[in-house]
Parts: sequence; structure tokens; C-alpha cells
Amino acid sequence: MTKLKNDLLLRAAKGEYTERTPVWLMRQAGRILPEYRAVRESLNGFIDLVKNPERAAEVTIQPVDILGVDAAIIFSDILVIPEAMGLPYEMQEKKGPNFPKTIQTAADLQQLKVADAASDLGYVAEAIRITKKELNGRVPLIGFAGAPFTIFTYMVEGSGSKTFSKARKMMYQNPTLSHQLLQMITDSTILYLKEQIKAGADIVQIFDSWAGILPPQQYEEFGLRYISQICDAIQEVPKTVFAKGAFFARKSIANLACDVIGLDWNMDAKESRQLIGEQKTLQGNLDPCVLYAPYDVIRKETKQMIDDFGKHRHIANLGHGVYPDIEPDKVKCFIEAVKEFSQK
Amino acid sequence: MTKLKNDLLLRAAKGEYTERTPVWLMRQAGRILPEYRAVRESLNGFIDLVKNPERAAEVTIQPVDILGVDAAIIFSDILVIPEAMGLPYEMQEKKGPNFPKTIQTAADLQQLKVADAASDLGYVAEAIRITKKELNGRVPLIGFAGAPFTIFTYMVEGSGSKTFSKARKMMYQNPTLSHQLLQMITDSTILYLKEQIKAGADIVQIFDSWAGILPPQQYEEFGLRYISQICDAIQEVPKTVFAKGAFFARKSIANLACDVIGLDWNMDAKESRQLIGEQKTLQGNLDPCVLYAPYDVIRKETKQMIDDFGKHRHIANLGHGVYPDIEPDKVKCFIEAVKEFSQK
Repeated sequence: MTKLKNDLLLRAAKGEYTERTPVWLMRQAGRILPEYRAVRESLNGFIDLVKNPERAAEVTIQPVDILGVDAAIIFSDILVIPEAMGLPYEMQEKKGPNFPKTIQTAADLQQLKVADAASDLGYVAEAIRITKKELNGRVPLIGFAGAPFTIFTYMVEGSGSKTFSKARKMMYQNPTLSHQLLQMITDSTILYLKEQIKAGADIVQIFDSWAGILPPQQYEEFGLRYISQICDAIQEVPKTVFAKGAFFARKSIANLACDVIGLDWNMDAKESRQLIGEQKTLQGNLDPCVLYAPYDVIRKETKQMIDDFGKHRHIANLGHGVYPDIEPDKVKCFIEAVKEFSQK
Repeated sequence: MTKLKNDLLLRAAKGEYTERTPVWLMRQAGRILPEYRAVRESLNGFIDLVKNPERAAEVTIQPVDILGVDAAIIFSDILVIPEAMGLPYEMQEKKGPNFPKTIQTAADLQQLKVADAASDLGYVAEAIRITKKELNGRVPLIGFAGAPFTIFTYMVEGSGSKTFSKARKMMYQNPTLSHQLLQMITDSTILYLKEQIKAGADIVQIFDSWAGILPPQQYEEFGLRYISQICDAIQEVPKTVFAKGAFFARKSIANLACDVIGLDWNMDAKESRQLIGEQKTLQGNLDPCVLYAPYDVIRKETKQMIDDFGKHRHIANLGHGVYPDIEPDKVKCFIEAVKEFSQK
């Protein structure tokens, strides 16, 4: 393996002291850069790009070159897991993902399999290998997967939703079936993350995008139970858990075998540190809409974030994926402000 | 005024001891009852029903007769305020509200006026008068309005949204214009609630549906500042504030001049009581999806909720509006379980 020239992110994840706070953005690989859109338009849509290792590697590296972030995150999609389990999806422009078939019954479940990550998801591992080679040690590479509950929600609901009431109805009406599906997703995800790590991912992040729709007790039972299995199974690299909206679960997440906990922009830095304790690195959490503000406001708010988290055990990020209509220069302003204000 | 035969809700709101916990449901007037749908289908859509005092009164009273709730809530819509300010909207089947014109600039703002509640919203007061007469003191009548921030969001965004980034962009790019619009909405809302009270509303609730999308500091500045003005201006009846998703603001809401604080189903009852103190009544907060569960689960979860809140200073409700596909018998099961388990 090539030795990393910039390993700030990994050192911060492990709780080591760093010269300054590392910074990257969720959704940096894709969305905001004209260079990304050019690649995407040259292909036949989003899913084609996800399945094209060379081009996926290319858009993964773009933000490292253009924005100056301290990590790359592999360009992919959390919904490759249901697809590899036997439930394909399509990406609808402006509307998001859609599953033509969904899981409603035990018979539906029997059509699924635990993903054979090495073969069915080999295109992601290949994208990671190409990326690692081309990065040539400049920055670490982040692998990722969706959390089982979020994946479950898509597989039952078929798309995004305001209330997720189909998926939530299944949890109340058929908890056994729900747990069976969650376990299959979990087993698939563990295999998948291990393939990513074998291919070169230096750290992995689990995204629980819909964590915040569950009551606290139910999130323990249907959410954290499975994230916990993943954290226990992955020992090779540091792990980040980002459970968006699950403010009520911060204490429980602190007990998982993870290294980094992602915070959204509703979660106060100091209160979160108090709930979580000193043993985890916190990641986040500037309001993504701050990047709509004038440059001086971005700098002021970024400085405030650095002050609130302190300069140890913090990875700077937004509290959510960067929004597609944010100007790249505003993103650069944020990144440069982190580097400037967190310097020791 | 006719003396109320069942005043449990008002007594609980004021912090008096009651024989049992009062119960009602957000969105009970509308959505789930076939009797409601029959009325709605006989008219030309949702907004026609809102503007028809006789029929609005009829659907307001239906859940009192059919479900046995301890309060009626006037059938109306929070978006009558923008309309009365000069910004009309339409309700699109399955898609929700849509504003053909939105507020983007100071020139747009100048087209608006503070609502003349007595004339422009006279149809709501009339519906309240009819309802009060027909209720004949059976239960109290709840009036309501949207919180200024939520109304602002619709007026700028034009519709619901996943990120509300248009409205949020305006708050960062033009805070002055944002505050001007929020103040006009606030002034309109105070006049409107006073008309509702004059017409007979026994208690009023302020719904801040999108409170949870703001970072804590910004919610103080753009959200609570205006709710506080409303609470200070309304002295005639008890007031309820329901700021959905604003878990981070519970301590601040406890400092408002309100009597009742609504909690969504993410907010733990005991933790909320600790943050809020003993001087407010709490309202909520069963997970609305529990009503998809079998009857025994509904009873068990309802009992748990009663146990968690205790039998004093609590108004039982769901943590969100009842979902449209819930069976009325499941709602009745919830209501009866509250009555049974909270009996002293």
C-alpha cells in the first residue's frame, strides 16, 4: 500500500491529535461540480455512472483536486445493496430512486438473497481500486453503505416518502418479517463493506438517512441493533455512524463499536459531546444552507463550528449532504475556513 | 356562553387535576372518517370545504360524535393566512398545497398586506360560531394557526419540500426581508387568532410543522421570536405550541407564555418533562404508526404513554396528525385506551 501523505482524517478518527481539523463533505463526489455533471451527461444516467468503475473513480477524485478536501469518498449509491439482493431500482430525474417491485410479504422476501458482494458488487470494489491507484496516497478513501433500516425503508416503501408509513406499517404489523429482511440487509452490508476494505477503503461510513422517523425505542430495536452488528463485524478500519435525525439515540450510538459519530445541523456540538463522552470523534455539522450565505457569513459560521467542537476529535463536515445548487466557490470558502481556523 | 359539560382539556391545559387524561387527535377533523370524505366529495375540493362554514362545522363535529374525543378542532387550514395576505394557493390532490406566486423580493413583499382577519377570514369565525352552537357545550373547541416560520416557508418555497432550501436561502441571503415577512405573518396571525377567540374558540394551538429543519440558533431568531409575540398577545384563552422536530428548543419553548407544549413521537416524555419543568402541560405523543398495529399493541403502547407522562398536566394525542389510511376503529381503540388507563 502507498503510504498516505495526508492522513489527518484517519488520525482524527482514531482520536489522535492533529495539526488541524480534517474536512470533507457528504455528497462531495457528485452534485455540485460542473466537472461531475459533464461526466454524468456523457453517460446514460446516474446508475450507469455508479456501475462504471473508471468514471466513478474519476468523479470520486474530482473534489480532491478541485476543492482541496482531506478525503475522497467513493462515488456510489446506498441502493446498490437492494439491487444486489435481487430488488433492482431506477433513478428518476428530480424524483429520486424508485423500486418497481417492493417487499410486502414473506413470499417477496423469499425472492431475495444475501448479496454476493464479491461478484454482484465487484464494480464498486473495482472503482475503489482504480481510485486508490490514482489518488496515489494523497488523501484517504472513504467507503460507505446505507444502514439496514434506511435500506429496509426503501425496499418496502419503494421510494422516498414524507411519512414512510408503508415501511412503518410493516414494522408494526409484521415485526418478524421486518427483522428477517433487516438481517438479510445487514449480512449483505457486512460482506459489502469487507469487499470495499479489501479493495482499499481506509475508513467506512454507515448512513442512516431515515433514522429520525422512528420513536426512540423502535430505533433501538429496528435500527441500532443492526448497525451494532456491522460495527462489531468490521474490525479492519475505523467506522463512522451517521444517523440523521436520531438526536434521541446519541447516548446509545456512543456505545457502539464505532470510532466517529456524525451529527446533523440540529444537534448542538457541546450537548452532543456531553451525551457521547470523550471516546468518539464527532463529525459535522455546519447547516448546509449556510453555504447559500455571503462569504463573510460562511467564514463566521465555520469559525463558530470549529470553536464549538474544539480542535480535538473533530472531523469538519456539513450536517447533511451538500445541496446540488451550492456554488463550488462557497464550498471552497468553507473548506479553507476550516483549515485556517482550526490551525494549531 | 353555554357552560361546557366536558372541560377536561381546558382544565388539564391550565394545570388543574382532572379525573382522567383528556384526548383528541391532530387532523381528527378530516382525513380518516368516511363521513368526512362524503362531505368533501360533495364539494369542489378541499379549499371549498375550508370556506364553507356550515360544512366545515359539520366535519369539525363528526369526530366528537363518532370517535368520542374530548375536544373538537375547527376544520380549516394553516394556509388561509397567506391567502388573506394576498398570496392565494391551490390544493393539489396527493401533492399538497401549491402557491402559483411566491415571495422572492422586496417588491413581492409590497404586494402583500397584513390580513384583515375580521373580513378576509370571516368564514373561519363563522364556522366557529356554528360549531359552538351545534356542540352546545359538549366539548371545548380548539382554534389554530400555523406558526409564522412554517407559513413563511410555504410563501417563499411555494410548496412542501425535502430541504426547504429556497426559504432557507432567503433567510441567509436576505435576513431583513425574511424578518419583514415574518412580522407581517405574525401580525396577521394575532388578529386571526383573536377573531377565532371572539367567535368562541376555547383554546388555540400554534402549529410549527417545519420547526425541525432549522439549526437551534436560527430557530430562536426566525421561529420562536415570532411565536413569542403571539403568545404574549393572546391572553384570552390557553395556548398550545407544537413545534414539530424542534427537540433542541424544548427549554426555550418552556419560557414562552404558553400553557401547553406539543411533543412529537421522537421526544421522550420523561426527558421532555425534565427539560420543560412542571409549569406546562405536555401534549402528545404516541407514534402515529402505532395505529397500524393490532389492537393489543395499540392498547399496550397507549398504556405505556400514559405511564410515561403520568396522569397530571398531560393531554393525550398522537405525535403528529393522524395518517389518512388509519382505520377509524383503531383510532377509537386509542381513545378508549386513554380513557381507561388514565382513570384515577
